[in-house]
Amino acid sequence: MNKAELISIDEIKKVINGDNVFVITDTNVKALYSSVFDGTRHAVIIAGEANKNLETVGRLIVEMVEKGCNRKTTVVAVGGGVVGDTAGYVAASYMRGVKWINVPTTLLAMVDSSIGGKTGVDVGGYKNVCGAFHLPVRVLICRDWLATLPDREWLCGCGEMIKHALLDEDIFKATLPVIDKLVARDMDVTAPLMEMSARYKESIVEADFKEGGLRKRLNVGHTVGHAVEKLDNFRLSHGQYVALGIVAEATMLKNELDINRYNDVIRLAHAVTTDAFPKLTSEEITEASKADKKNGSGEIVIMLPTGNDVKEIALTPDEFKEKLEACIYDL
Amino acid sequence: MNKAELISIDEIKKVINGDNVFVITDTNVKALYSSVFDGTRHAVIIAGEANKNLETVGRLIVEMVEKGCNRKTTVVAVGGGVVGDTAGYVAASYMRGVKWINVPTTLLAMVDSSIGGKTGVDVGGYKNVCGAFHLPVRVLICRDWLATLPDREWLCGCGEMIKHALLDEDIFKATLPVIDKLVARDMDVTAPLMEMSARYKESIVEADFKEGGLRKRLNVGHTVGHAVEKLDNFRLSHGQYVALGIVAEATMLKNELDINRYNDVIRLAHAVTTDAFPKLTSEEITEASKADKKNGSGEIVIMLPTGNDVKEIALTPDEFKEKLEACIYDL
Repeated sequence: MNKAELISIDEIKKVINGDNVFVITDTNVKALYSSVFDGTRHAVIIAGEANKNLETVGRLIVEMVEKGCNRKTTVVAVGGGVVGDTAGYVAASYMRGVKWINVPTTLLAMVDSSIGGKTGVDVGGYKNVCGAFHLPVRVLICRDWLATLPDREWLCGCGEMIKHALLDEDIFKATLPVIDKLVARDMDVTAPLMEMSARYKESIVEADFKEGGLRKRLNVGHTVGHAVEKLDNFRLSHGQYVALGIVAEATMLKNELDINRYNDVIRLAHAVTTDAFPKLTSEEITEASKADKKNGSGEIVIMLPTGNDVKEIALTPDEFKEKLEACIYDL
Repeated sequence: MNKAELISIDEIKKVINGDNVFVITDTNVKALYSSVFDGTRHAVIIAGEANKNLETVGRLIVEMVEKGCNRKTTVVAVGGGVVGDTAGYVAASYMRGVKWINVPTTLLAMVDSSIGGKTGVDVGGYKNVCGAFHLPVRVLICRDWLATLPDREWLCGCGEMIKHALLDEDIFKATLPVIDKLVARDMDVTAPLMEMSARYKESIVEADFKEGGLRKRLNVGHTVGHAVEKLDNFRLSHGQYVALGIVAEATMLKNELDINRYNDVIRLAHAVTTDAFPKLTSEEITEASKADKKNGSGEIVIMLPTGNDVKEIALTPDEFKEKLEACIYDL
C-alpha cells in the first residue's frame, strides 16, 4: 500500500488534469470549488449517503463509457467518504477494474475512510453491503479543503481521531493536552494530529493485510455507536456517535480500566460531543447491537482499549443489556 | 485456479444443500429442474441477457441479506452464462466478496464462460462493462443438464468449441472427423470433446494469469462475429455468430492460410451455422468493428489461427473494409 501524500491544491489540479483521468466529485465540492474542475473530464454525484447506491454506480459507468473511458483510465475521487466509497467501487468494477486515486476533502476521509481500500455502496438500506477491496494507487491529502468544511463534519472527523488516539499511545499523549484546540479547528494543532491519525490507520491496514484480524480494533466505540446512530436516525454525524459509543462502552466496562485512564477517555470523547446521550432504552440499544453485521455468533463484541492493549470482550445480549442498564442514565 | 470437475447431478444436489450456501438460478432452469432446488436457500432471476444488469445485482444482494447470508456464505450459480456472470459478480461484491461455485447448465458455459473468473453485468446497454475478476472455488460440470438444452443453445456452444479446435491441434484432429455428430448432439462424441474444450480454456486462463496477453487468442472469430451479432440484432446465438466470424475472418485473410487448412476451417464453421451470412455491407461491419472495446488504437485487430500459431493482424479500417468487400458476397 502506498502511503498517503500531503500535497497542495495546485498539485491536485495537475493530477485531475492528467492524461486519461476521470474525476468523480459531488455537488457540495463542485459548488465550493467549481474552478478547480474547469477543463477536467468529470462527473458530479448528488451529495449525501442517500446517493451511495447502485443507481449512482450505473450512471457513473454509463457516463464513463460515453466520455471515452477505457481500461487504462484512472478514476480520481474528490470528496468525502461517500464519494470515495462510490468512486472506488466504480473503479473496482469498470471494465472489471481500473486504477483510482483518492482525494479526500473531509477530515474524516483524510484520517480514516480514504485509507485501506474498502469501497462500496448501500443496497436496499443495508450499509456497505455491496463493494470491493480495491486499494487506490495514491491518496492525496490537501488541508486547504478543510477551510470550508461544516462544523458537523469537522466533529465527525474528530470522533475518529479520538478513536485512533485511544489505540495509539503517541497519538493519545499528543491529543490530550490540545483536544479543545483540535475541536476548535486550530490548524496548527490539527495538521500534525491529522497526519499521525492517517499514518496510524495505514499501519493497521498494512498489518492487517499480512496478519488478519487487526482491523477489528478499529471498531472501538462502534458497537454502541452504530446502534445509537441508527436508533437516533443519524441526527448527529457518525464521528459524534463514535464518541458517544466510546463513552458508553468505557463506562459499561469501567472496572476493566485504570481510573485515570477512564477519566482521560471521557474527557476526549466529551470534547467531541457535548450532545446529551440520546433518550434510548438499554433494550433498544441491545437489540440494535445484536443486528450488527460484525456479530456472527449471537454474542455482542466490544473492543475496549485499555492503554496497553485492546481487549476483545464478548458479552451475551443479557450481559450487554445489564451492563448498559447500570450506567445508561449517567451517560 | 482449480480444475473443472465432472460430477453427477446427485453430487450437485449435495453441494447446493450444503451449509451456508446461497443458490442463484434462473426461471428456465428452475422450471425444468424444480425439484432439484427443493429445500435449498435460493433466488431465481428472470432468464435472459436483458436481466443481466445492476438492478438484478441489487435485488440479489437484498435477498441475500434478508435470507441471512454473511461473509462465510458460498454463492452457487446454477445456469448458463447470464446466471454465472451475474451471480459471480454478486459473489465478488457481497460484503466485499464471498466465495462462489459455478454450476454451468449450457454447453457454452461448460466449455467456455464458466471458466476463468470473468464476471459482470451490462449497464445502459453496454455489455459486461461492470464486473470483476473473481475465480469460482469450484466449477462443477454435469452433462445431465444438456438433455433439455434448446438447439439454438447447443449450436451456440458448438461455435465456441470450434473456436477452441482452431487453437489447439489435438482438439482440431479430434473434432474434424466427428463434427456432424457433435452438431447432432451425439453425447458419446460430445462428452470427450467438451472436456478437451474446457481443459483448453483452463490452460489459457492459467497461462494468462502468469504471462498476460494469451487470452487475446480467444478472440478468434470475434472481431467480425461481435460486429455482425450487434448489426443482426442477436437473431442467432452468440456461438453461431462466432462461427460466421471465423468464416469471414479466415476468408478475408485466406492468403495467410494453407489451402487445406482453410477448407477444414470452413467445414467446421459451416457445420455449426448453416445460416446465410446476414445481408450487411462491409461499411457497416467495419464501423461496428471499430467500436469494439478491444481496439484501443484505431486499428482493427483480427486473431488468425494458422494451425501452428495464432497471428495477431492489425488492419486500418480502410484495409479491413477492402478485404471484407473482396469476399463478402461469397460468405
